[in-house]
Amino acid sequence: MRTTGKAPVQQPSAMPVKKYRPYWETMTFDYPERTWPSVNVTRAPRWLSTDLRDGNQALIEPMDPVRKRKMFDLLVAIGIKEIEIGFPAASQTDFDFVRSLVEDDAVPDDVCVSVLTQARPDLIARTVEAIKGFPWANVHIYNATSPVFREVVFHNDKAATVELARAGVTEVMVQAEKILGDDQVFGLQYSPEIFTDTERDFALEVCENVMELWQPDDDREIILNLPATVERYTPNSYADLIEWMSDHLSHRDHVVLSAHPHNDRGTGIAAAELAMKAGVDRVEGCLLGQGERTGNVDLLVLAMNLYSQGIDPMLDLSDVDGIRDVVEYCTQMDTPVRHPYVGDLVYTSFSGSHQDAIKKGFQARAAKVAAAGGDETTVVWDLPYLAIDPHDIGRTYEAVVRVNSQSGKGGIAYLMSRDHSFELPRRLQAEFSRLIQRHTDGTGGEVASDRLLEIFTDEYLPAPPASGLAPWGRFTLLDSRAESLSEDGTVTVTIDLMDNGAKTTLSGVGNGPIDAFISALGTIGIDAHVLDYAEHAMEAGRDARAAAYVEVEVADQVLWGVGVDPSITRATYRAVISAVNRALR
Amino acid sequence: MRTTGKAPVQQPSAMPVKKYRPYWETMTFDYPERTWPSVNVTRAPRWLSTDLRDGNQALIEPMDPVRKRKMFDLLVAIGIKEIEIGFPAASQTDFDFVRSLVEDDAVPDDVCVSVLTQARPDLIARTVEAIKGFPWANVHIYNATSPVFREVVFHNDKAATVELARAGVTEVMVQAEKILGDDQVFGLQYSPEIFTDTERDFALEVCENVMELWQPDDDREIILNLPATVERYTPNSYADLIEWMSDHLSHRDHVVLSAHPHNDRGTGIAAAELAMKAGVDRVEGCLLGQGERTGNVDLLVLAMNLYSQGIDPMLDLSDVDGIRDVVEYCTQMDTPVRHPYVGDLVYTSFSGSHQDAIKKGFQARAAKVAAAGGDETTVVWDLPYLAIDPHDIGRTYEAVVRVNSQSGKGGIAYLMSRDHSFELPRRLQAEFSRLIQRHTDGTGGEVASDRLLEIFTDEYLPAPPASGLAPWGRFTLLDSRAESLSEDGTVTVTIDLMDNGAKTTLSGVGNGPIDAFISALGTIGIDAHVLDYAEHAMEAGRDARAAAYVEVEVADQVLWGVGVDPSITRATYRAVISAVNRALR
Repeated sequence: MRTTGKAPVQQPSAMPVKKYRPYWETMTFDYPERTWPSVNVTRAPRWLSTDLRDGNQALIEPMDPVRKRKMFDLLVAIGIKEIEIGFPAASQTDFDFVRSLVEDDAVPDDVCVSVLTQARPDLIARTVEAIKGFPWANVHIYNATSPVFREVVFHNDKAATVELARAGVTEVMVQAEKILGDDQVFGLQYSPEIFTDTERDFALEVCENVMELWQPDDDREIILNLPATVERYTPNSYADLIEWMSDHLSHRDHVVLSAHPHNDRGTGIAAAELAMKAGVDRVEGCLLGQGERTGNVDLLVLAMNLYSQGIDPMLDLSDVDGIRDVVEYCTQMDTPVRHPYVGDLVYTSFSGSHQDAIKKGFQARAAKVAAAGGDETTVVWDLPYLAIDPHDIGRTYEAVVRVNSQSGKGGIAYLMSRDHSFELPRRLQAEFSRLIQRHTDGTGGEVASDRLLEIFTDEYLPAPPASGLAPWGRFTLLDSRAESLSEDGTVTVTIDLMDNGAKTTLSGVGNGPIDAFISALGTIGIDAHVLDYAEHAMEAGRDARAAAYVEVEVADQVLWGVGVDPSITRATYRAVISAVNRALR
Repeated sequence: MRTTGKAPVQQPSAMPVKKYRPYWETMTFDYPERTWPSVNVTRAPRWLSTDLRDGNQALIEPMDPVRKRKMFDLLVAIGIKEIEIGFPAASQTDFDFVRSLVEDDAVPDDVCVSVLTQARPDLIARTVEAIKGFPWANVHIYNATSPVFREVVFHNDKAATVELARAGVTEVMVQAEKILGDDQVFGLQYSPEIFTDTERDFALEVCENVMELWQPDDDREIILNLPATVERYTPNSYADLIEWMSDHLSHRDHVVLSAHPHNDRGTGIAAAELAMKAGVDRVEGCLLGQGERTGNVDLLVLAMNLYSQGIDPMLDLSDVDGIRDVVEYCTQMDTPVRHPYVGDLVYTSFSGSHQDAIKKGFQARAAKVAAAGGDETTVVWDLPYLAIDPHDIGRTYEAVVRVNSQSGKGGIAYLMSRDHSFELPRRLQAEFSRLIQRHTDGTGGEVASDRLLEIFTDEYLPAPPASGLAPWGRFTLLDSRAESLSEDGTVTVTIDLMDNGAKTTLSGVGNGPIDAFISALGTIGIDAHVLDYAEHAMEAGRDARAAAYVEVEVADQVLWGVGVDPSITRATYRAVISAVNRALR
């Protein structure tokens, strides 16, 4: 053998990579004053759900009014207090839905709804009209501030862009004064769109212009939302921009700084989290990450990430499958099987070493919980491969372990114990897992827990047929037996067996019933030695069955036998016969 | 109305949040010396695919040998040079597959394969046996170093853990010397497992012990892989740890520092990217993010994120759907519809304002490409809402725009143009999109491009039945007409129509054929004025049809008519009749 110091040579692709320029060439920004990398987030942000707006506009089947209402009620039920309910001036459907919430008195007093509008005077009156009658409502107004939009889409220069924002906000304020009732609480949210593509000085300038009109104060908060409508760069750069904005905005005490990440690069969750470190007070997103293209940031994952650190998400996620069911019904979208916290496979462990570690982790935890007086909520969760306790969010351990050809003895032993009450001794686990691997290597598939039991039964516990003929092996235990204890401590057993279909009675003497039975087998030429032995009750109570396990050396083979019987000695005899029959098969 | 300065009051959940402790209490670490937030990554890392190992062990249906081979060949085809091919000592299936690659001579000379083993002497000889005959192969050896594993799973203290690593590495070196051929290039990879849960001083200590044995040098690189086997904290903390390790490791010039992120918190991509900033030379992951639970980090997304910044990923992703097909075949797993770059919906825009901006972006780009001499690969990609050009990776614009009730005129106009050759004037776009919205508001669903044409035809272009009776409106144009140009520049038209089923001939004079036709309609009491007019050829060549659009004011209504005909004047007459009929319907 030789060694090398050379890296494998990767080849350039033929794709037209020069078409793209790095974001740092146009969005050049390094912020050495940043403090966010050292910040720990210790409380939940304000959550805004835009499921009914940004999420809904990206569905193949947008929600009908019934589904919208079901989504709204879910959001309220899990504790979200800020809900964007539509873009009422853009479609009659949205307008009607917004009105239906007022008319049905569907919005609790502590929930603030909001509606989106472009900064276009022709849309604003209708937008404000839509929220008349809500106890607490915001208008969320935006205009395009980024260069591509200014130049390609709207043909506006910077001054005209500022003017558009000012005119829009002014019109919102005028219409709100005119249309809304005295008892309505009204608020303003402004988004420079797309914030992450906008020159930061200019984004700041537009926000300051908006604030000059709104005049934020103790009783007049303003929400400034900084959308990453298309995610274009690594999340640390979003955090740098957020912290820069937070450092430079006036009225900071009365500004609610809000993040609105998308997931085009697959880093939307990280963008939200680093933005929280960088100073945002509020995060906008959707349940399970619906939204245009790759989706808005997923509020459930953000909340669960906080939860996993012992930080209350201020949302009730104790029935995450129930939440998922409603979201899937409303959005008509499936949840990916590997979706964090929620997907079908995320509490599943296929690998043998993982299963083994999880099993030991559960055992260690059970001991700690017992030592703590039984209250598991007081014992720190610290389990291999399971970031959180699935039980906390209504998932069960049912799915924790699944067995396939990559599985080892740990997972198999766990399922045999949990589902079938067999506490397999360690070397029996190894023997049985090799047997399972032979099954799965052939089929390539997964073995369900019930199938595990079938294979186990077939190998170790086949029921003798009524005929007494034993297709599973030479010997079958019959009902009768006798044990007598002599004064020297030895045991004599007399035992009836079927031997290849013929009834026979054997006797033997030993220092215990197993030893005596082995001696009895010796009288007909079966040379066996017991190497290990274990037994346990399979249920509680008088009628409980016992499971016995014996490791036996028979004719140069070492193998295990298993016996199940209400009588602990019969279970043991059965186990010996199981091993002997397997050896002779 | 009133305003408020108070935040909505979010309520604590009833979940047992105290069961969890923040990672910074046990993994306390702030690294003010960090430099990574200011680093730009300007080249691709070394990629290692663990699709055949970590990915495969997490599949519901692990790959059979045929699928494994197909995956291996795909990895080679797209340019991955480091491929972990199995855990041969753990299962016969893995061992046999590894051997089959040698026996089939399936591994190109420039590809380095690797096999995983625990640091257990009983596994190592068989592991090294498995790689005999490969031109270039690494053994990847790991042992558990993190406290939970040391204490709960293996009952080892730190000294025993170091000793395990040393004994394992020693055995690997001994067996490699003994078993491998002189012409084989052999390398070592070591992973402290789980790095991200291990005290960083101890992780460093174990790595240094391993290096003391291996003695990295110019012709002896060592790969030190730092797995986040379960993702437990924000990606910036992973980057801090990586940079700390990079700063403190000896032999740094001969160490290949490698990241191995998982995605339990949904931040695996970010963890890999920040780790690259922090100094890793190499990233381990899987195509489309297979792997235990939430998956390993997705190499395709990482590569495409580089590509979107003009950095060659050193992988050929020009046929991303082809790659996806093979991965789905091999893994038997679906790809989520919002999966970045690859999902079905990620180049789809449902929102009207997005569609409009994309349409304008394409137009602006086409103009720039034309100005640049037609080579689109030289023109910087800068399109609203599309982070990359789907065409670069074999996706087409087919799916760019889909229309539902949230859509606006931009998307509709785009589809009508691209698929049906109608270049709708702007106000006709608005009129038609209101019509589409009435359709979609009713059904809630998406409108396919063909259905758009049906609705358009039904509204603007209904074919008159053979009977001549016109269910779509009062007038039907007949075949005969005459135009005469007089010396004063006026046009006289004589035109045959069906009027409510009765044939009639009208004449009129005007300054052009449309004006004359409108005059002719005036003779039977139809008072119409043309406000706007546009016409274009729908195809190239002699037999091309023309599409004509007229905006007409008829009886206080302003509406559009459309006509299609091989003759440009007949198309115009048809358009006028279309508008008049619509007004009278």
